[in-house]
Amino acid sequence: MILQPIVDLVEICARKGVQDVVLSPGSRCAPLTIAFARHPKLRVRTVPDERSAAFIGLGLAQQTRRPVVLVCTSGTAAYNYAPAVAEAFYQNIPLLVLTADRPPEWIDQLDGQTIRQSHIYGKHVKSSLDFPVDTTHPDAQWHANRLVNEALNEALAFPQGPVHLNIPLREPFYPEPDEEIKFNDKVRVIEEMPSAYGLPEEAWQNLRAELSKFSRILVVAGQGQKCPNTYEAVQLFCRASGAVFVTDVISNLQIEGETINYHDVFLGAKHLHAEAALQPDLLITFHQSLISKNMKLFLRKQQGLQHWHVQPAGFVADTFQFLTRIIRTEPKDFFLKLNQGETSPQVKPAFTQSWHSLNFKGKSILEQFQKNSPFSEFQACHTVLRNLPDNSLLHLANSMSVRYANLIGVADKENVEVFANRGTSGIDGSTSTAVGAALSTDNLVTLLTGDMAFLYDRNALWHNYLPQNFRVVVLNNHGGGIFRMIEGPRNQPELRPFFETEQRQTAQKTAEDMGLNYLKVTDAAGLAEALNTFFDVSAGPQLLEVETSSPENYAIFDQYRKAVQEIKL
Amino acid sequence: MILQPIVDLVEICARKGVQDVVLSPGSRCAPLTIAFARHPKLRVRTVPDERSAAFIGLGLAQQTRRPVVLVCTSGTAAYNYAPAVAEAFYQNIPLLVLTADRPPEWIDQLDGQTIRQSHIYGKHVKSSLDFPVDTTHPDAQWHANRLVNEALNEALAFPQGPVHLNIPLREPFYPEPDEEIKFNDKVRVIEEMPSAYGLPEEAWQNLRAELSKFSRILVVAGQGQKCPNTYEAVQLFCRASGAVFVTDVISNLQIEGETINYHDVFLGAKHLHAEAALQPDLLITFHQSLISKNMKLFLRKQQGLQHWHVQPAGFVADTFQFLTRIIRTEPKDFFLKLNQGETSPQVKPAFTQSWHSLNFKGKSILEQFQKNSPFSEFQACHTVLRNLPDNSLLHLANSMSVRYANLIGVADKENVEVFANRGTSGIDGSTSTAVGAALSTDNLVTLLTGDMAFLYDRNALWHNYLPQNFRVVVLNNHGGGIFRMIEGPRNQPELRPFFETEQRQTAQKTAEDMGLNYLKVTDAAGLAEALNTFFDVSAGPQLLEVETSSPENYAIFDQYRKAVQEIKL
Repeated sequence: MILQPIVDLVEICARKGVQDVVLSPGSRCAPLTIAFARHPKLRVRTVPDERSAAFIGLGLAQQTRRPVVLVCTSGTAAYNYAPAVAEAFYQNIPLLVLTADRPPEWIDQLDGQTIRQSHIYGKHVKSSLDFPVDTTHPDAQWHANRLVNEALNEALAFPQGPVHLNIPLREPFYPEPDEEIKFNDKVRVIEEMPSAYGLPEEAWQNLRAELSKFSRILVVAGQGQKCPNTYEAVQLFCRASGAVFVTDVISNLQIEGETINYHDVFLGAKHLHAEAALQPDLLITFHQSLISKNMKLFLRKQQGLQHWHVQPAGFVADTFQFLTRIIRTEPKDFFLKLNQGETSPQVKPAFTQSWHSLNFKGKSILEQFQKNSPFSEFQACHTVLRNLPDNSLLHLANSMSVRYANLIGVADKENVEVFANRGTSGIDGSTSTAVGAALSTDNLVTLLTGDMAFLYDRNALWHNYLPQNFRVVVLNNHGGGIFRMIEGPRNQPELRPFFETEQRQTAQKTAEDMGLNYLKVTDAAGLAEALNTFFDVSAGPQLLEVETSSPENYAIFDQYRKAVQEIKL
Repeated sequence: MILQPIVDLVEICARKGVQDVVLSPGSRCAPLTIAFARHPKLRVRTVPDERSAAFIGLGLAQQTRRPVVLVCTSGTAAYNYAPAVAEAFYQNIPLLVLTADRPPEWIDQLDGQTIRQSHIYGKHVKSSLDFPVDTTHPDAQWHANRLVNEALNEALAFPQGPVHLNIPLREPFYPEPDEEIKFNDKVRVIEEMPSAYGLPEEAWQNLRAELSKFSRILVVAGQGQKCPNTYEAVQLFCRASGAVFVTDVISNLQIEGETINYHDVFLGAKHLHAEAALQPDLLITFHQSLISKNMKLFLRKQQGLQHWHVQPAGFVADTFQFLTRIIRTEPKDFFLKLNQGETSPQVKPAFTQSWHSLNFKGKSILEQFQKNSPFSEFQACHTVLRNLPDNSLLHLANSMSVRYANLIGVADKENVEVFANRGTSGIDGSTSTAVGAALSTDNLVTLLTGDMAFLYDRNALWHNYLPQNFRVVVLNNHGGGIFRMIEGPRNQPELRPFFETEQRQTAQKTAEDMGLNYLKVTDAAGLAEALNTFFDVSAGPQLLEVETSSPENYAIFDQYRKAVQEIKL
C-alpha cells in the first residue's frame, strides 16, 4: 500500500514547479519511486550510482532553476549524495533530497541498509526535516503536508539550495494489485511569494553621494548565470562612470571589447600587482566565486580601499579580506539605481585606460603564444574554446580545465554559457553535472575535462539517458597534471606517485562502454580535423580525447608564464 | 615547511601499530602526504577516487585489525569517504580518517575546496576531533599529541571503529629544498592497555543454574572473523549440552557436519516457522549481523523465549525483538565458563535432532537442485563456492551474491574466510573492500559480485596496486536482478526501468582498462572449464564474467523456492 501522504508529497512537488526527478534503485524507497514514476507531469529518470545521480540532478537544477528531486534508498546511498549536496549548497542550487529510511525503531538493529540518516548532511543543507513515521493521525497528515511545502519553499528561497527530507517507511512498500495511486487535486500548497530586495530611497541617495568620492572603481563579477539585464545595467554604469568591469569566464558576463577578460593573463605578471595605475579605491562585487587566483592575489594586496558587495540575502564571504559594505539588493537593480542619479562618479581615465590597455596586451600575448607554441593541452583548450559553437553550453571540470579556460575566455562567443562546480571545486561530479545540463536542453553541451576528473566520475554516463547533444573533450596527460604546474609538489620527490598519481588509462573503453563515439588526437592538425565534425548536431554523443605529456605541458605552460611576466603597462 | 606536530602525528601512528596508509591526491593535504610517504615503516598507497580509497582502507583494516590511516584533501573529498566510514562504524573496523582542511578563518570564504568539515561524519564515527590550527604554543603541541593518541586509542577500543581527525593547515604546504623531515623518537605515546571483560564468579554460577532450566537452546553466530578458539568453546558447549549452533556464511564458524549451515535453505519452508520441534526456549547470540532473512523471520515469530546476547562492550541491537539479557564478556570466555560447570544444561534430543535432520535435508535438496537445474547465476555461485581453493578469502558483494552464498555456504572448505559489507549492506564499496583485503595477504582473494555492484564500484581498480592474488566473479544479469527476486517490485509495471535498472555493459572493458585478465562464460561447461585455471596462483588478477538472463534466473530460483517448500521435518 502506498500511503496517501507519500502520493500527496509527489503531487505537491509537481504543483510547486518540480519537473525533474532522479531516482536510484532501491526497495525501501519503492513507495516514492512508484508514486513519482506514475505522476503524469514529472520527468523521472533512474541512475544507479547515487554520487552521479545527485550531480546529474544538480546539473538539471542549475539549468532549470527549479528544484530537482532526488530519491534514494536507505543506508549509505544517502551518503553518496553528500558531495553533490555540498556543491549545491555552496553554488545555491535548489535540490529536494528525499532519502527513504527505516522507521526509528529499526535504526541500529543490524537489519540491513540502515544508518543514522536524520540530519546526515550536517551543515550543507538549508534545512533538514524528518517526515512523520506514522501518518494516521490528522495532525501527522498536516505535518507531512507542511514539511513538503516548507522543504520546497526553503529550497527556492534566495539564496536557493538543497533541503533534506528523510522519510521513514514501513512495509508494505508496494501497492496491492488492484490499488490505484490517486493524486489529489485538492492537496494543500503553501505558496511563498518571491521577495523584492531593496534599500530605502535615502540610502540610494547616500550611496550615489558616496560613490562620487571614488575615482578608481573596479567592478568584479563572480560566478553567475547569463543575465543580459544585469550585463546591461553594469555596462551603462561603467560607460557613464568609466568604472572597470572584470569578468571571469564563469561570470557569464564576458563581452569582447567591453569587459576585462584577460585579467587572469596579465595579472600573472606579479610586478603589476604593485602598479599604482591599476589600484582601485572602490571594489564592487556581486555573484559568487572567482576562479582567477591572480586577481584574488592582486586584490588582497591592495590597501585602504573600500569593498562593497551586492547580494540580496544570505551569508556574504569576505574573499579579499577588506569587505566594508553589504548591499542587500539585486545586482541589476543596484547598477540601475546608481545610473539614475543626476551625476555619475567620475573615474580617472588613466585608471580605466590602464586596465583596458593591459586587457588588450594580455589577449595579444595569449593569442601570440598559442599561435607560436608547440602543441600542448593549453593550446588544445584554446583551440576548442575558440571553436565552440554559438548558443551552446560549456561545462568546465576542476582542476586545470577551468583554470586554462579562465585564461582563454569565451568573450568572443555568442551566447555561450559557462558552468563549473566552483561551489566546492571538486572533481567528483563535473561529468555528471554536465550530463544533467545536457538533459535539460537541446543545445550542445561541451564538457572540457581532464583524465582524472573524467575517469573519477565515469559513472556519470552509466545509465540509459545519454543525451545526443553531449560532447566531452578529455585532456589526458595520464595523471593530475595540475600538481606539476604548481610550485610546491613539482620539486618534491613525491611528485610521482603521490601528487601527480600516474594513471595509464585512456577514455576509449569508457566511451565505448557508455555509448559515446570516440575520437583521439595527439597534435594540432588532428585536433583541427576532429573539430570539423565534433560539434555536428547530428553526430550524437562524442568524446574527443587529447593525449599529451605532462612534462611537455608543464614546459610549455612555463614558457607562457615567463612570457606573461614581460607584460608591462 | 612541514610542522613538527604533523611529523609527530605520523610517528605516533607508526608507533601505535599503524602499518597501512591510503592517500588520495590533493594539495591541502601535502604536509600529511609527504610526512607519511617519508616514514620508513609505513606502507603508503595512493588511490584517486576517495570513495574507493576509503573502502580499500576498510578492507585492509578488516584483515589486519590495525587502524588504517586515510588521508584526503579538503572539500568534498572528505564526503566521498562517508560511505566507507559508516560501514566501518557498523562493522567495527578501526580507521583513522585524516581530512586536511583550511584554517577556520577561510571556511565559507568562496576560496575553493572548502566545506564545513568539522564533525562531517555525524553519528558514524566513534569520535570526531579537531586538530589545533596553530601549534606554536606548547599547550597546543600537547593538545596535538594528545588528540592523535586519543584518536588511535579510541579507534582500537572495543568495539573498534572509525575516528575522524580534521586537520586545518595553512600554507606553506611543502618543505623547503633543504628541509629535512625529522621523525622524533621521543614523541610521547599514550598506550591504552586492552581490557578484560568478565562477570563476577557468582554471576557465572547463576548463569549456569539458570541455563539448566532450558531444554531447547539455540546458539546463533552473527558476522565475525575466523576464530578457532571461539569455535572450539562453542562446540564443547554444544556437544556437552545438545545445544544447536546455527552459522551464517559470514559467521566464519561453519563446519560441515557440526554446525547448522543450511538454515537459510530449510527455513525457506515457511510452514516450519511454526514447527514446535524447532522452537527454542533460549537463544544465545554473539558477534554481528545475520544475513538469513528466513532465520530472522523464524526467530521473530517465536513466543516467550529468552534471548541472551554476549558482547564485551558497546551498543547491543535487539534484532529479533525479544532480547532479555546482555552478557558483557568475550563469546569464547562465555562458552568456556559455561563448560566449567559441574552440570551442563540438557537439551532435549528431539530438538537437537530436528535441527540437524533439517540441516541434512536442506543440504540435500540444495545439492540435488543444483545438480538437476538448468544453468543460472544461482548454480554459478554454487559451482564457484564448491571450487574455492582452501586457505583463501571470499568477499561477497551485496545484494544477491551474499544471499546466494548464504544458502550455499562454505562449510566444506578448509580455512576459507568470508567477508561482506554487512554493516550497512551497501553495494558501493564491495570491490574496493576486496581489493584492500587482497593487498593485505598473499592468499587468493575471490570477490563474488553482481554487475550492478561491480560497475558501481569500478574505481576500486583504478590505481597502481592491482594485487596478483585478486579474482573477481561477476554475475552479470544486466540489471539489479534482486528486484525481480523479491515479491513486490516483480509485479509492478515499474520493474523496468525503475527497480531492475537495465544496464547493457559487460565487465570486459573495465577489466581490460584495469589490467585484469578477462574470461567470460554463459553456461555450466564454460564455467567448469574456466575454473580449471581461474584460481591458479600464477595467473595474476582475473575477472570471470558469468552472463545470464534475469528472467531465467528468476524462473530457476523460483523453482528452487518451490522445492524448498516441500521440506518437512
